[in-house]
Amino acid sequence: MKKFVLYIAMSIDGYIAKHDDDISWLSIVEREGEDYGYHDFIQSVDTVILGRKTYTKVMSMTDEFPHKHKKTYILSRTPKANEGNIEYYNGNIAALLEKIRKENTMQGIVFCDGGADIVQQCLQTHLFDTIIISIIPILLGGGIRLFSSEYPLQRMELVRSATFPSGLVQVWYKKYEE
Amino acid sequence: MKKFVLYIAMSIDGYIAKHDDDISWLSIVEREGEDYGYHDFIQSVDTVILGRKTYTKVMSMTDEFPHKHKKTYILSRTPKANEGNIEYYNGNIAALLEKIRKENTMQGIVFCDGGADIVQQCLQTHLFDTIIISIIPILLGGGIRLFSSEYPLQRMELVRSATFPSGLVQVWYKKYEE
Repeated sequence: MKKFVLYIAMSIDGYIAKHDDDISWLSIVEREGEDYGYHDFIQSVDTVILGRKTYTKVMSMTDEFPHKHKKTYILSRTPKANEGNIEYYNGNIAALLEKIRKENTMQGIVFCDGGADIVQQCLQTHLFDTIIISIIPILLGGGIRLFSSEYPLQRMELVRSATFPSGLVQVWYKKYEE
Repeated sequence: MKKFVLYIAMSIDGYIAKHDDDISWLSIVEREGEDYGYHDFIQSVDTVILGRKTYTKVMSMTDEFPHKHKKTYILSRTPKANEGNIEYYNGNIAALLEKIRKENTMQGIVFCDGGADIVQQCLQTHLFDTIIISIIPILLGGGIRLFSSEYPLQRMELVRSATFPSGLVQVWYKKYEE
């Protein structure tokens, strides 16, 4: 079954952006030739799910959608016509995942690219098979939380962790099996 | 100068206890002969600061205060008579730290044992020299947050990290110096 993976960066205190969506603080871990495994991860992805606001934010920072060669679902309450590999989706994420898994039985990963609202919906029903968090060595002191909502307790299993010279710590968790 | 250190466990999603103060979920990382460096850490401590509610919680779980051989300050709005090494303190934590550092110039560490309210006060004015967090492999989905308040941004420096077979990841940060 295709894995649904959250791959995201947060501050020590659990924020993914400042209140004004600013993510420039991520630059404190920018190092020449170090992408923290992002290239390898994204190579294994064939489907991307992200929220409309996150998509708009990404497109405000770049000319070309970085995942244009992958099937992409933009979760939006406002339906729009498909554009290339991009499909707008207005509905339940669990149902979308089921559809993706039925239509595409390849080994590739389904990547949840945020934002926070989408993450909360996925946590509600324990949709993520794997959660990969890059912890940035900063206390933001406020902003948009990665874990903002209430949802049922879920035990996880640490798959791996990696520490980088910049101080970034990356932790990989998968669903815990009894 | 005596270091002021926060040493605490939290869930992946940043909670130190459930809403009802329950911390029984910490038991998922209990392993025979593994204390995650606690003994070594506590050996280096000569002064403990904790909140009155946390103290009451600790005493509800044990007959004897675990830090009774160390100088202990209980932060409380209700003054009480000193008991052995325990002194009640009603005031500013920064001022208390200054007093401790003036009176006790030994190498020992000042340990902040929580709870969350005390942590927030310390974060407001960047009081912690070192923050040691043990990340427990569980998503609690709600409860008492380690980082609940707003405070000024503070860049930190990763000093070390350790990963244990139980899935606990321990991260050590100190104040970042430009």
